[in-house]
Amino acid sequence: KKSFRVAVLPGDGIGPDVVAQAVRVLEVVSATSPDIELKLEEHLFGGCAIDATGVPLPDSTLQACKEADAILMGSVGGPKWDVNSKVRPEQGLLGLRKALGLYANIRPCNFASDSLLAYSPLKAAIAQGTDIIIIRELIGGAYFGERKELGQAAQPDVAYDTMIYSIPEVQRITRVAAQIALNANPPLAIHSIDKANVLASSRLWRKVVVETLQSEYPQLTLDHTLVDSASMVMVANPKKLNGVVVTENLFGDILSDEASVIPGSLGLLPSASLAGAPSVADALSPEFKPTHGLYEPIHGSAPDIAGKGIANPIGTILSAAMLLRYSLGLDKYAAAIETAVRKVLDNKDIGGFEFRTADLGGSTKTTEIGDKIVEVL
Amino acid sequence: KKSFRVAVLPGDGIGPDVVAQAVRVLEVVSATSPDIELKLEEHLFGGCAIDATGVPLPDSTLQACKEADAILMGSVGGPKWDVNSKVRPEQGLLGLRKALGLYANIRPCNFASDSLLAYSPLKAAIAQGTDIIIIRELIGGAYFGERKELGQAAQPDVAYDTMIYSIPEVQRITRVAAQIALNANPPLAIHSIDKANVLASSRLWRKVVVETLQSEYPQLTLDHTLVDSASMVMVANPKKLNGVVVTENLFGDILSDEASVIPGSLGLLPSASLAGAPSVADALSPEFKPTHGLYEPIHGSAPDIAGKGIANPIGTILSAAMLLRYSLGLDKYAAAIETAVRKVLDNKDIGGFEFRTADLGGSTKTTEIGDKIVEVL
Ligand SMILES: CC(C)[C@H](C(=O)O)[C@@H](O)C(=O)O
Ligand SMILES: CC(C)[C@H](C(=O)O)[C@@H](O)C(=O)O
Repeated sequence: KKSFRVAVLPGDGIGPDVVAQAVRVLEVVSATSPDIELKLEEHLFGGCAIDATGVPLPDSTLQACKEADAILMGSVGGPKWDVNSKVRPEQGLLGLRKALGLYANIRPCNFASDSLLAYSPLKAAIAQGTDIIIIRELIGGAYFGERKELGQAAQPDVAYDTMIYSIPEVQRITRVAAQIALNANPPLAIHSIDKANVLASSRLWRKVVVETLQSEYPQLTLDHTLVDSASMVMVANPKKLNGVVVTENLFGDILSDEASVIPGSLGLLPSASLAGAPSVADALSPEFKPTHGLYEPIHGSAPDIAGKGIANPIGTILSAAMLLRYSLGLDKYAAAIETAVRKVLDNKDIGGFEFRTADLGGSTKTTEIGDKIVEVL
Repeated sequence: KKSFRVAVLPGDGIGPDVVAQAVRVLEVVSATSPDIELKLEEHLFGGCAIDATGVPLPDSTLQACKEADAILMGSVGGPKWDVNSKVRPEQGLLGLRKALGLYANIRPCNFASDSLLAYSPLKAAIAQGTDIIIIRELIGGAYFGERKELGQAAQPDVAYDTMIYSIPEVQRITRVAAQIALNANPPLAIHSIDKANVLASSRLWRKVVVETLQSEYPQLTLDHTLVDSASMVMVANPKKLNGVVVTENLFGDILSDEASVIPGSLGLLPSASLAGAPSVADALSPEFKPTHGLYEPIHGSAPDIAGKGIANPIGTILSAAMLLRYSLGLDKYAAAIETAVRKVLDNKDIGGFEFRTADLGGSTKTTEIGDKIVEVL
């Protein structure tokens, strides 16, 4: 049996609630598979790590994440660790991203089941068929450029951040976008988002995306949308962005969250953050093999419902599926989980179980979703 | 008769089409009013100015804008003046904003008529009642901070922009937000948007907004939303942001465009960009008197339909109403135009004319909208 180590970081708020269900699903995969074995190990991360150790990302957690084959995370943060505190849970997340080089954040946005169309804030005709994979550059731009807080700069009454990109940073994220586009048959269209009519960093972004795709992946189609326009299209006609959307860190933060409400609940959506440089050679065999991968639902820690057993674990369970697919190369098991999720969400009239947690106006409990997915599997 | 000078900048694409109708409306106001007179004068601006003079903002246009009591603009840009050209129409717009100190961009987002709910991409129950005034800081942040193009920086393979804010810049936009909030009875709630969990410029922003409102406008309510979360709320439950949304330049660019698709068509929405510093003393009499004001529809130049006579002029006509209200203090005439617009848009079953231009799936012509609004007035 091939053995994989998965570091599990439940985090804060509803993190432990939802991670527990994804862990069950992974354990079932491990127990029933003839050829693989998953070793899951929990570690402190985020606010709970601040409380226990004084820092959001303890050395032992970072070490375990470095050594693991993949990382499964819940969520971090909460009102207890305020924006104005010196030590904040988010610093742990930003630190982990940077330390592992997780530069490629991948967020699929689609309907796990068409039965969920009723929950979208968009009219069904507009929402139906939305199928976007957002690829956000995760360790560059204004998040990690030089910054000066108020009082630190030469001018006493200003504060600033630097939105900075280098050619290699844009090349590698473009290659991830290209390889994910090529994984589909026919290949997906690539939509690059920037603000090249104003920003120098966006002009570099656009130039490098164009040149990288033209020289390494000439078979792919590419278009460019300004970020303000993209934020309109995402609501007015999201299908126009179907395929792969690739963008820089801050724009990706905003647009991926905007997209995430289309499928009706944040609780449904997974994400992956990957490290490892696809090389030009990989273009021939379009498979992106990350050296590190962090998988987490896109929702926050929702402290108001933490521990109540009503959080939606589906985003985390689908994150576990992404973990199997991208980091462990176990596409078969990933697909099985996705099929089980669909069945649990599908309305009864099309043969599903029509389970609905509180975020979808229902009363299904967190564990009941886990039970049913395990049963279907 | 009191006389006002209005500089008119039709610009490119559909700009001249829509501005022509707003000009007609202003001329009717001027001709029928017993106490005011409007002197309208057209000037070159944008791509057409590049073609005629080599620059998007000729000195004579800038001079006329400086001397005018208010400026009415159409739209600038088009594929003819490409993102990669050295001289671009947007530079004229950014230059005009900077030269006149137009730091407060005001974009109301609401339904000019509930008959338009059918055209919103959002479900009617979610969209109905959306009533947000977005106030975007317009001449600070990453748009005007120091930047280096690729090849200009010390490191040869990077490009960067600087997101920078000073205390006075944030103070004055906060005061505009406060005074607009106080113009309503009861006063509107203020929602400040930032990314204070990551960016130093956002931490300055939040601190100054809090301190300015606490010391100068303690009667107003204020809350804070992170920009990624705001971009979700804007789609999932826009009414949560009802009131005044105040934010920095780049976030405002993205969020105001996102909001603008809620009312069904970009063609419907106006904007104002104002200069002039409200002082603390003004807090007592909540009236914001701009020294300069630029009024324009929020849509772009739509070169594909330019000159076809099918563009929607309502956003420009409502911009003319804002011009009368903010720059000329003629609230009465502004309200009359807004009422006429509502009547033209209302469905027939509630006594309206149900006019629909192509952007709303109809076949009403640009001039027919102008005719009818003039007639109603
Ligand atoms: C918590 C925060 C720092 C983080 C980000 O902005 O990247 C979050 O919003 C996300 O998108 O993962
Ligand atoms: C044309 C462009 C420079 C401008 C901006 O980004 O400010 C436009 O998008 C706007 O919002 O008025």
